[in-house]
Amino acid sequence: MLIVENKLYDEVESLPERVRIFDTTLRDGEQTAGISFTKEQKLMIARQLAKLGVASIEAGFPASSPGELEAVKAIANEGLGVEIVGLARSNKRDIDKALDANVDAIHVFIAASDIHLKYKLRMTREEALRAAIEAVEYAKEHGVVVEFSPEDATRADLKYLYTMVESVVDAGADRVDIPDTVGVMTPTRMKYLIRYILPAAKGRIVSVHCHNDFGLAVANSISGIEAGAQQAHVTVNGIGERAGNAALEEVVAALEFLLNVRTGVKTELLYETSLLVSKLSGIPIPPNKPIVGANAFAHESGIHVHGVINNPFTYEPIRPEMVGQKRRIVLGKHSGRHGVEHALKTLGYPTHPDLVLVVLKKVKEYGDKGMRVTEEEFRKIVEESLRELEEKEARAEEIKKNV
Amino acid sequence: MLIVENKLYDEVESLPERVRIFDTTLRDGEQTAGISFTKEQKLMIARQLAKLGVASIEAGFPASSPGELEAVKAIANEGLGVEIVGLARSNKRDIDKALDANVDAIHVFIAASDIHLKYKLRMTREEALRAAIEAVEYAKEHGVVVEFSPEDATRADLKYLYTMVESVVDAGADRVDIPDTVGVMTPTRMKYLIRYILPAAKGRIVSVHCHNDFGLAVANSISGIEAGAQQAHVTVNGIGERAGNAALEEVVAALEFLLNVRTGVKTELLYETSLLVSKLSGIPIPPNKPIVGANAFAHESGIHVHGVINNPFTYEPIRPEMVGQKRRIVLGKHSGRHGVEHALKTLGYPTHPDLVLVVLKKVKEYGDKGMRVTEEEFRKIVEESLRELEEKEARAEEIKKNV
Repeated sequence: MLIVENKLYDEVESLPERVRIFDTTLRDGEQTAGISFTKEQKLMIARQLAKLGVASIEAGFPASSPGELEAVKAIANEGLGVEIVGLARSNKRDIDKALDANVDAIHVFIAASDIHLKYKLRMTREEALRAAIEAVEYAKEHGVVVEFSPEDATRADLKYLYTMVESVVDAGADRVDIPDTVGVMTPTRMKYLIRYILPAAKGRIVSVHCHNDFGLAVANSISGIEAGAQQAHVTVNGIGERAGNAALEEVVAALEFLLNVRTGVKTELLYETSLLVSKLSGIPIPPNKPIVGANAFAHESGIHVHGVINNPFTYEPIRPEMVGQKRRIVLGKHSGRHGVEHALKTLGYPTHPDLVLVVLKKVKEYGDKGMRVTEEEFRKIVEESLRELEEKEARAEEIKKNV
Repeated sequence: MLIVENKLYDEVESLPERVRIFDTTLRDGEQTAGISFTKEQKLMIARQLAKLGVASIEAGFPASSPGELEAVKAIANEGLGVEIVGLARSNKRDIDKALDANVDAIHVFIAASDIHLKYKLRMTREEALRAAIEAVEYAKEHGVVVEFSPEDATRADLKYLYTMVESVVDAGADRVDIPDTVGVMTPTRMKYLIRYILPAAKGRIVSVHCHNDFGLAVANSISGIEAGAQQAHVTVNGIGERAGNAALEEVVAALEFLLNVRTGVKTELLYETSLLVSKLSGIPIPPNKPIVGANAFAHESGIHVHGVINNPFTYEPIRPEMVGQKRRIVLGKHSGRHGVEHALKTLGYPTHPDLVLVVLKKVKEYGDKGMRVTEEEFRKIVEESLRELEEKEARAEEIKKNV
């Protein structure tokens, strides 16, 4: 793998060998405004996630509706060999519903920030703390794994957050997740926060759950991991509330290929997983989406195409096959000789320099008009160019004869 | 502004007061495979960028085609009151073409990584260094501002990179840009790299140019700025080669609202700028795009809607109006009482608790089937519920009478 010499950065990084990937496409991902998966769709996605190799699948929020409880139960009973998680607020009813759904783990949460306590829950800090402890104890009594999230942790008072984390760990929580609920962290701040909170977790796994309101979710997840977190909450294609969650495919690819951290994910299945979730959620994959977008490994400009044809690593950080993707060479206004030559060769045309130059000129003129050169148009351009060159040659022959 | 108490993080951050926003939507953005702007479209975007308040507009690569030269020239002659930049490889022909286009500044580049030198340019490090120095000197002789980029800097040998930066600064370069050409940096590494290279720039402005191959472009830009860079190359909607460049709207919003750094950008124009570029590039804005996506300030789930109605900051990091956006309350499977009440009120229906509960049940059933509740369908649900409640009441009256 040719990416970056890691040694240079050893002094500024400390990384775990392995990170748990906690997928919440079916819970926080489904909370995307306007998205709703049927039970069958949820099952299809859960099966794909198990095949992909995530450590946990948060299948839903059983207390939210009877249909949701049924869907989570169906996934839990599918025997996927992956930990199935259900979300619950810090009350017995929600936890009972999650237990009814037969999940392996319950993700219990309560707000930790003053703004959430005051304007949403209308509870004091003490009341929320007590509810959190009681909920964790109640869930633990039923023999499930418990992961606890102090919601809006990144806007909470840090000392209160520390107390809450310590208290739920003492109450039996197996993992603690730190949610950046409204996506306001930066990588530097996330590192600071996770380092600060780590001792309160007393050796339990600390997780990060990052939202993408400022486009920083993937980076904040990775920064949290550099600071000692060993789990990341992610969603396929980064779907989720508002600007969504940290994208599974981006977090995994960054950990595996940039930082050499193992995730358990079969990266070559990332692309097909992304396509499935796009299809079922109805949210198209933007062409410039990292890793899985149609353009993630596409090249048009002359300089780039020339480089990639000589050695793909000139303008590709990884081989597209590593994430189940393909390279595309596109023709247009920014094309150069090498792109045209490559296209001619691919489509079985001759590649002599005269033809390349004539075709390139036409391709660029086409692009200057703001048009895209499809394969069909490219074939037309080539046929036309071949005719022109033949006529020119014939004229030259004619002149030669007459001389 | 309620975001995060900055004081907590003061010890880990050092930030400039102001950052230059160097927009390259019309150059690197247009290099997106399949995108091509006409001269008129380029002009429209340039005018919008000037109105938005960016510091520099990279208008194109004049040497790439006659149409491109003409478009750059048209923008340069528009008198927009913003620095207009043209791209040039490190040779006289490219620089002459940029000069022909009448630009204020020339962005001169040459590859700095061994992989680019070997497989693309087939030059030695010494040859590339000489070409860079000569190009900068030649451009400076013509009285323009010169910004220099050592391409693929993040995969280059650091000592060689240092030498190249120092040499072009000595040759007269006004600014030095550090491109993460294939998007392989992480925030931690970017901070290290910029700190390392800063002394070589001898007080000239250092810029960052980040690609988004692993979803880290915005974070890497911000990390570079925390390390001492004072300019960021960005594109509207993050369009650009492969997974694109750092998105202007995300970098600006993070700097302004999270880090309290001034950019000169009128943030309330971000949304309209994004819409314009989306329309002209033909690349739709994904719903979960930070800042400018349709869902960036949308809420459906009961918990979130309840919070936002009480106080928007519970589930919104900033007011949507600050970036020219609007809040949307969406109804579906995850809705709660407050979302239904809000929708009833908005559409002028009564909001008594009986009606809210009946409508909510129907909305959730609708969502459980995987369907979206549009305004039209919501109105149908409400009318139906009102009829049902009336009938129920009538029956109750009937029974009462008969008793």
